[in-house]
Amino acid sequence: MAASNRRKIPEATVARLPLYLRSLFEGQHAGLTTISSERLAELAGVNAAKVRKDLSYLGSYGTRGVGYDVDYLLFQMSRELGLTQDWPVAIVGLGNLGQALANYGGFGDRGYPIAALFDADPNVIGTLVHGQTVRSIEELPAIVADRHIAIGIIATPAVAAQDVADRLAAAGVPSILNFAPTMISVPPAVSLRKVDLAVELQILSFYQQRKAGGPPAAPVAVLD
Amino acid sequence: MAASNRRKIPEATVARLPLYLRSLFEGQHAGLTTISSERLAELAGVNAAKVRKDLSYLGSYGTRGVGYDVDYLLFQMSRELGLTQDWPVAIVGLGNLGQALANYGGFGDRGYPIAALFDADPNVIGTLVHGQTVRSIEELPAIVADRHIAIGIIATPAVAAQDVADRLAAAGVPSILNFAPTMISVPPAVSLRKVDLAVELQILSFYQQRKAGGPPAAPVAVLD
Repeated sequence: MAASNRRKIPEATVARLPLYLRSLFEGQHAGLTTISSERLAELAGVNAAKVRKDLSYLGSYGTRGVGYDVDYLLFQMSRELGLTQDWPVAIVGLGNLGQALANYGGFGDRGYPIAALFDADPNVIGTLVHGQTVRSIEELPAIVADRHIAIGIIATPAVAAQDVADRLAAAGVPSILNFAPTMISVPPAVSLRKVDLAVELQILSFYQQRKAGGPPAAPVAVLD
Repeated sequence: MAASNRRKIPEATVARLPLYLRSLFEGQHAGLTTISSERLAELAGVNAAKVRKDLSYLGSYGTRGVGYDVDYLLFQMSRELGLTQDWPVAIVGLGNLGQALANYGGFGDRGYPIAALFDADPNVIGTLVHGQTVRSIEELPAIVADRHIAIGIIATPAVAAQDVADRLAAAGVPSILNFAPTMISVPPAVSLRKVDLAVELQILSFYQQRKAGGPPAAPVAVLD
């Protein structure tokens, strides 16, 4: 089994790979043919030692005084992230968020074609979103099988999210990305990630507060 | 200066604090009064040693055999993240994404009230979104000052993003969250974070590919 010999890549490294990938594309776009770990670190917003360590998990070590070959590193990283093949995506829930995701420019051309749209609302089923007909959630099993859906995006209200997750899992969709503001559970064989749009705001307010001198002092017991 | 004595918290730790916070709220909701680092690690999807290390930056060490006091840790973490005060948010761009963000349940009740909405399109200006009137981008400086906007969210098309960032920075908005699929630059005094919705898809496809046995073998030179 090829998989069993593979080095385990730490989760935190996996989470940084997309940042490196994006930075490398920017570098390539700007005409770079080689890139130092320092420059890549700066673009990705991490430190250079971490970049070198992370890339070493991919078997990339760069050349002293020259850095990494941008094209080769891009190829290698795309391969690791599975971007040398397409991963058809289904979006469930075509409210504002689902529509925004369906219209979001950055998916199709990065290997995640939006291959199916589902909703439960009879007023939404049959409408066109970004050139594609919204289908009934009842048709999900047949369409998932037919279009080899690899990732299901849940963009429904919170109350519907678990039911949709159950339907996606039952239909054999191996990965789920949940945008609904609620916890859902899936069988162990299904990969699940949750996007919480408030997290980024919390990170910003942390830094803003620090710039302003840090949080208010901890409350002190008052003797009376 | 209080700020200068403060321990520097690593960026990666800051990025995990919101995950701990969410997990603690879930624990509290489930009736927990104390929580072990192992349980918190499981909920947040990191390892327990990292949880203990991260929390030690906040001065929290827990009690051996008991764990951490959930309410106190929540208070402490909310304080670090600046959640004991409100951070008024302005959304610029009320297309599908901007509307989805304005309607997203999770902001206001977590300390990020949506305090202003702006657009440049005369057909959009004056409309109501989530009970609030969309104002002209030309009114941005006055409204930002009046409502003490702390965070500006850019939800415009890519071409408009830099102009909007310039306007937000000029109006004195200290933090910007960019959803537009493009790079923007801001003055050093402004904190900037970018949300790239494709990143989560890339992380999912990485794991999916690994489960299937890893990436295809690297290409081998063919002698002919």
